[in-house]
Amino acid sequence: MADLIEKFRPLFYPRSVAMFGATSDVRKWGFALFHNLVKGGFPGNIYPLNIKKDEVLGIKAYKSIAEIPAAVDLAVITIPPEGVPDALTQCARKSVKSVVVNTAGFGETGEKGKAIEKEMAEIAGAAGMVLIGPNSQGIMSAPGKLFPQMMGVQPPGGRISMVSQSGNIGGTLMGWGRKCNTLLGKFVSAGNEAQTSCADLIRYFGHDPDTSVACGYIEGVRDGASFISAVRETARNKPIVILKGGRTAAGRGAARSHTGAMAGEAGLFDAACRQAGAILANSLEELFDLVAAFASLPLPRGNRVGIITQGGGWGVLAADAAHVSGLEIVKLPDDATARLDQILPERWSRRNPVDLAAGGGRGVLEKCLEILISCENIDAVAMLGMGPAAILKANMQGSPFYTQERIEDLSSRADSIEEDITRFTIESMKRSGKPIVCSSDVIGSPYESESPAVRTMREQGLVMYSSPERCVRVLAGLAAYSKYLNSF
Amino acid sequence: MADLIEKFRPLFYPRSVAMFGATSDVRKWGFALFHNLVKGGFPGNIYPLNIKKDEVLGIKAYKSIAEIPAAVDLAVITIPPEGVPDALTQCARKSVKSVVVNTAGFGETGEKGKAIEKEMAEIAGAAGMVLIGPNSQGIMSAPGKLFPQMMGVQPPGGRISMVSQSGNIGGTLMGWGRKCNTLLGKFVSAGNEAQTSCADLIRYFGHDPDTSVACGYIEGVRDGASFISAVRETARNKPIVILKGGRTAAGRGAARSHTGAMAGEAGLFDAACRQAGAILANSLEELFDLVAAFASLPLPRGNRVGIITQGGGWGVLAADAAHVSGLEIVKLPDDATARLDQILPERWSRRNPVDLAAGGGRGVLEKCLEILISCENIDAVAMLGMGPAAILKANMQGSPFYTQERIEDLSSRADSIEEDITRFTIESMKRSGKPIVCSSDVIGSPYESESPAVRTMREQGLVMYSSPERCVRVLAGLAAYSKYLNSF
Repeated sequence: MADLIEKFRPLFYPRSVAMFGATSDVRKWGFALFHNLVKGGFPGNIYPLNIKKDEVLGIKAYKSIAEIPAAVDLAVITIPPEGVPDALTQCARKSVKSVVVNTAGFGETGEKGKAIEKEMAEIAGAAGMVLIGPNSQGIMSAPGKLFPQMMGVQPPGGRISMVSQSGNIGGTLMGWGRKCNTLLGKFVSAGNEAQTSCADLIRYFGHDPDTSVACGYIEGVRDGASFISAVRETARNKPIVILKGGRTAAGRGAARSHTGAMAGEAGLFDAACRQAGAILANSLEELFDLVAAFASLPLPRGNRVGIITQGGGWGVLAADAAHVSGLEIVKLPDDATARLDQILPERWSRRNPVDLAAGGGRGVLEKCLEILISCENIDAVAMLGMGPAAILKANMQGSPFYTQERIEDLSSRADSIEEDITRFTIESMKRSGKPIVCSSDVIGSPYESESPAVRTMREQGLVMYSSPERCVRVLAGLAAYSKYLNSF
Repeated sequence: MADLIEKFRPLFYPRSVAMFGATSDVRKWGFALFHNLVKGGFPGNIYPLNIKKDEVLGIKAYKSIAEIPAAVDLAVITIPPEGVPDALTQCARKSVKSVVVNTAGFGETGEKGKAIEKEMAEIAGAAGMVLIGPNSQGIMSAPGKLFPQMMGVQPPGGRISMVSQSGNIGGTLMGWGRKCNTLLGKFVSAGNEAQTSCADLIRYFGHDPDTSVACGYIEGVRDGASFISAVRETARNKPIVILKGGRTAAGRGAARSHTGAMAGEAGLFDAACRQAGAILANSLEELFDLVAAFASLPLPRGNRVGIITQGGGWGVLAADAAHVSGLEIVKLPDDATARLDQILPERWSRRNPVDLAAGGGRGVLEKCLEILISCENIDAVAMLGMGPAAILKANMQGSPFYTQERIEDLSSRADSIEEDITRFTIESMKRSGKPIVCSSDVIGSPYESESPAVRTMREQGLVMYSSPERCVRVLAGLAAYSKYLNSF
């Protein structure tokens, strides 16, 4: 696989980038992409190509790529469609190693566009160039400090890599990930895939040492066998999560005009992907939930779950969602029940989900977690209703019955209890090697940003899920992948 | 129905409230509930009952309810279980009109508790008292300025009323609603329903002029026929949204220990509710999404949807979700296509979903919306990818290529474009009488709170949905209810 890593090195870790269409006109894509490339601190040489200007954003510009006095690893092409084939030919002559074509207006518009795309793929192929696009919204590589894309510069450190048949869907994941340090490391808007396909990129992600989790938003694939084979190859190395768009007649129609891809029969696609080891997401939010979980949690050994809840209804909804998604809500071993009896109020549920029944003195939640996570027959724990301190604090504000001093005293106590619980949860996960996933209804409330639990988790790249159902569904995804790996 | 309104008036609009167990000890429920009652600005008389103290939170306390020198409309009971039947008897002697029992430890713990509950119901029944609970987390009535509950004081103005077999699930909805001014007006944690059932409350909400949308979280009902009949009666007057917990064996087990309710077969329950006109939510988040939509959007005449998207992938996912949830993605009429041709870039999708293909000059989105909303064959519009200004602004920050002046100039331009679009959207909805529902991936990103679109919508009590799928699923809920009403 050294060949594959080598092949894509000039795309994701180029030493130099040239850009056709770089401009200082803020209304144009050629500005946004070039701006983000420069602002992102790309460490190699940057060569804007602009026939009218001597410099763009303070960087010396060239009239043509041939004039550039050094080798070019990556060319980004953001010029009107009629000029694109010639630009590609110039790249080939210059021995450029990889090209991203952002320009749209090819295969997605009809047969004539498809013919030009074919020609572009031939030029690239003959010259041994990797070609992304056309109609790509851009690529990014955080480890390569490379951000020639619309969505702005991303913080470093992400190990999730995504290929997408929609640029905006990548943007959605990047935005959500910023909130909880669940970051994309690499992103490719695949565009019309004239040469490089989603399958090629998924295979690369599978072998890329900077990628821990691969994911894809896929509307359709031209070569199903090759796609499934890439998924299979990657799934053996690391989790791969796929969201399929164009599952219905209505969605397929939209997909056709979007990327020109023919969306296949969703049921067959699902079955083949699942068999190849992919984890399937049912919605855009679930795609994020799953990649975030895979990026930050250990894999469970099996599908047996313990649930701790601070509210009965949350436990019921989580148990339903767990059951539906293939998890087992195990019976608590007698000794665990006996130990819980000693710390919980008399009215506690005496079953899984463990409903704390509002009986949470300091340290009680930690003890419950310790008991559940130690159970031989529990592979993973969901903790529901975490982090009430921010809501408690908000309720005290403006009350005539607390002095400011008293509010501060009770607030700092609530914060410290919550921080203890959150840290203990994170440590328990490390100690036990079992995943612990948390939900809190502070997520989506106005107090989210003031929650010590949310802050503590986000610092560790952990997601606090907004609902009991989302929380257990990610555990089902982790368990499904674990089962796949254990099948060998 | 004047009787029903009269019957529940002392519960939701009492002139006086007495509270057994009111205390200034912050660790106790009797503090939290009493504190919130007082802080909430209840306009009538408040009588704390406390045998040890002369006053609680500065309000004169009584040793027994008999000593109170005036009539008591509502008594709240938050004392240890052994004292509850006697407290009820005292209430009956005092001719109290309604009672909420927060104390737990009755029917949910076994047969003995059930027998005591029966006795409580008999005491209340004989005295003509409305009894809520036991094991209720509390009630609230924003129009009655009545907040004897755990979740704190709610802002005024809400017209969504909820009955719940879980107090915490009510709290979740209240928290989420605060963020977007989609507020609960009344909430009842039904507890063990010794006397007043969820069905009774749903029927009341159906006739209550202060309620526009009713909803319920239901784990199980003892009298299915009476429940369905209440749902039917309410659904003829206003939307009622139901989330069913305990759908699976695992969830039913959890529900049994939670409220002691026997959760019935979910499929039968669903079918009966649907036939009675209820809209069913599939998750806690969907429950919120739906009630928020019903509270703020007009009903569509039918299920035919137009979608406008600023990104192809979002349109595909929305089209899939629309199709699955029973909406029709209509073919655009030829004249609408012709009008769109004149304002959109040549490459636009020429079909529904209308993909703007990044061709958004100032005013273009407004024109598209105007064209779609005017189509005879379109009953509702979904707008995807609203509100990018906050993300654009964040991308400019810290760039060496913009002066501060330039950033401020472009930011205020982006904000003003976005505010125009959002205001136009809200006005179009009012003008056309057709629902328009919006999604934005700024929701869930770190820039959410800085979004002019989000701010403008929230001021109007409108929700910006976080994903394309959630956005169209609420339209499906609205269309289903519209269809139900049209069936008469």
